[in-house]
Amino acid sequence: MMRNRRVVIVGAGFGGLQAAQSLAHSGADVLLIDRHNYHTFVPLLYQVATGQIEPEYIAYPIRTILRRFSFNYRRQHHKPQVQFLMAEVEQIDFSGQIVKTAKGAIDYDFLVLATGSRTQFWGVNGAEEYAFPMRSLEEAVALRNHIFSCFEQAIQESDAAKRQQLLTFTIVGGGATGVEMAGALVEMLRGCLRRDCPTIDFGEVKIILVQSGDRLLVEFPKKLGNYTYKKLHQLGVEVYLQTRVSQLTEGFVHLDNAEIIPCASVIWTAGLEANLPGVSEELPVAHKGKIVVHPTLQVLEHPNVYAIGDLAYVEKNGKSLSGVAPEALQQGVAVARNIQQQIRGKSPKPFSYFNKGRLAIIGCYSGVGKIGAFAFTGFLAWLMWLGVHLVYLPGYRSRLLVLLTWLHTYLGSDRHVRVILSSKTMSVLHRPADLPYLQESR
Amino acid sequence: MMRNRRVVIVGAGFGGLQAAQSLAHSGADVLLIDRHNYHTFVPLLYQVATGQIEPEYIAYPIRTILRRFSFNYRRQHHKPQVQFLMAEVEQIDFSGQIVKTAKGAIDYDFLVLATGSRTQFWGVNGAEEYAFPMRSLEEAVALRNHIFSCFEQAIQESDAAKRQQLLTFTIVGGGATGVEMAGALVEMLRGCLRRDCPTIDFGEVKIILVQSGDRLLVEFPKKLGNYTYKKLHQLGVEVYLQTRVSQLTEGFVHLDNAEIIPCASVIWTAGLEANLPGVSEELPVAHKGKIVVHPTLQVLEHPNVYAIGDLAYVEKNGKSLSGVAPEALQQGVAVARNIQQQIRGKSPKPFSYFNKGRLAIIGCYSGVGKIGAFAFTGFLAWLMWLGVHLVYLPGYRSRLLVLLTWLHTYLGSDRHVRVILSSKTMSVLHRPADLPYLQESR
Repeated sequence: MMRNRRVVIVGAGFGGLQAAQSLAHSGADVLLIDRHNYHTFVPLLYQVATGQIEPEYIAYPIRTILRRFSFNYRRQHHKPQVQFLMAEVEQIDFSGQIVKTAKGAIDYDFLVLATGSRTQFWGVNGAEEYAFPMRSLEEAVALRNHIFSCFEQAIQESDAAKRQQLLTFTIVGGGATGVEMAGALVEMLRGCLRRDCPTIDFGEVKIILVQSGDRLLVEFPKKLGNYTYKKLHQLGVEVYLQTRVSQLTEGFVHLDNAEIIPCASVIWTAGLEANLPGVSEELPVAHKGKIVVHPTLQVLEHPNVYAIGDLAYVEKNGKSLSGVAPEALQQGVAVARNIQQQIRGKSPKPFSYFNKGRLAIIGCYSGVGKIGAFAFTGFLAWLMWLGVHLVYLPGYRSRLLVLLTWLHTYLGSDRHVRVILSSKTMSVLHRPADLPYLQESR
Repeated sequence: MMRNRRVVIVGAGFGGLQAAQSLAHSGADVLLIDRHNYHTFVPLLYQVATGQIEPEYIAYPIRTILRRFSFNYRRQHHKPQVQFLMAEVEQIDFSGQIVKTAKGAIDYDFLVLATGSRTQFWGVNGAEEYAFPMRSLEEAVALRNHIFSCFEQAIQESDAAKRQQLLTFTIVGGGATGVEMAGALVEMLRGCLRRDCPTIDFGEVKIILVQSGDRLLVEFPKKLGNYTYKKLHQLGVEVYLQTRVSQLTEGFVHLDNAEIIPCASVIWTAGLEANLPGVSEELPVAHKGKIVVHPTLQVLEHPNVYAIGDLAYVEKNGKSLSGVAPEALQQGVAVARNIQQQIRGKSPKPFSYFNKGRLAIIGCYSGVGKIGAFAFTGFLAWLMWLGVHLVYLPGYRSRLLVLLTWLHTYLGSDRHVRVILSSKTMSVLHRPADLPYLQESR
């Protein structure tokens, strides 16, 4: 009997997880590798950063997700079909067909690269040091700690200039993440903070959004970008268009128009680049370091290696895909189908993205959306955004808890998660998770 | 007009918070100081450590609690009567009546010390380095990360001895915390972990409870301690009575009977000592470093300084109080009453603890309890424990969420919070919360 083919998937984001699910009952041995033991539901990270929902609501244990995939299978064979390895991938050897991890080497017949993207600071001086990125659960929690610490300090600060600095929040980047973050900060201020900190003059709080382009939400029609600008302006956000950050220094944002903003909190949403794993040979890369792939999503010259999601450069109508979850999900399905084709000795098929539409949330009961030729704004888009994300959250329990939290937030204008995990006590968390103290057993 | 008297309360645990609440409408200016911005509901920490509930459910923002206290008052004067300062107390000067904090000095007319207790390692070699304490939210989260990391590593470990080491959990201390932790680990193994990690042989998992005394739960009648021993034994926990830990080394527990247990996880619940703040002069201390107080809870020779909760040495029927939440709560009420007496020029009254009874949870639907002369065990005690703690949780929202989580856990045998925040990415959390990079404003 021929042995099962082994498919290794690196990365358990939207694309990797979907690929694993689609391959779960294919008969292939699937191994999913991720450096975390949980899948992060990235679209709701900004709600973690602003203390609206608990971090654990959007971090779902991968083993539990896999358990659900392999449920039918296990009833018959008592062995899960998709295995999981929590490990950091160190190097991938294409010629030897081996993935080297900190926990050993794994050989593969087919490989799916789905390692996503990471924050791109564009070489701006001081950005890596002083700006808060928001791409991972830990980063969102760190930002939450920081924001609430600023308010605690501002309450005690008698120097008006320093207080102003503590109460100024600058968001760099006017894409969907920057806009939703600006809106969420406004909601946070209007809601719980005003009541929790009655001694703060909320006229002193400044939220600034810096965008290099001439409008917000460039992925959307111009009309929607303009609506977003007006809406944020109404909410009290200062939006700087056609402005770039030239430098960040301790407590200050330097703009290219020579303006210098005293500001303790800089939130960086201005760019992403492909998070390429270490590979044995140079791969052709395109825009933002993404791997160039065939229309079938196969990596050039490596027919048994696929790249999907934010890692792959895929075009539709001559334009690069924009890096949203539905693209990665559809590519996950496609890559699973193509691998099964190859196992059966057939040719893989080209991937084509079906765009169901796009939504962005502004906050304070408004959002924008575009479905086909239909563009819409306001409450409907806001509600749809929340509804769609609720449906896509993994796990009934998370869905219920997030729904309850939202109802509580919007009906009661309250936010619960304002817990500052202090940096001092946080050092306890630094006990090495990798147990380096385990010696040779006797 | 005479100025309002200022009462400073150090510590926002059960005692400090209760004192603040009881003084909220007294007319005195109350300032509550804590190094965290949240109140930790300590009795449920073990559920955080075993991934049963989200850390944020038992960490309630202090400002929100105070908002509720001062609600009536604010309607009239628009100024909260109880203020909060998030700061580390550095030194207390009794003669100058000044509390020195990292954020400035505060003078007081009356002072309530409620800084609680901290883990006591009894000078056991290696304990501070290798054992996990469980007294704070951060410590509970660190322990959770560690426990789930051990399972992730055990899955990949082919060496049987090393796997055994990773799957051995030793709890030091057979008091209520040690017992509930042992039971919670059993629940965790029986529930989600068995399903998430089908490749682990759960016969290899060892839970060991080491107790120096001749029975468990020494605060309870002997009968209940024996019941607890039998119950834990049934659940598969190895209980070592009359045994002490002599030393901890990397990955090993050394017992005083010369036995050496290979063990990656040591949970330390074996002792607490008073967490005395820095004071200007030596205070007479008793058992466990607790401050000796008059029956009125006044510190000797300092009639305007009170000590309550785990920090104060208080006797009932010739025995020291045992350090549970109801004692601190009742002392919080008493101290508020006594300060008001003093403000009115009257003498403070002696405190007397009214013991409503005591409960301890074992887990797996059993617990023990004693109310008056009536001792009971099993399901009733288990249910009462959960019910009482649910009622005492601050905030309706936390109560609802914890109740839902428990229903989900016990009806579905699942646990959601198995998220390992890795030590590497955790470094992001180390951005200083104190913003040292804020310079002199220009």
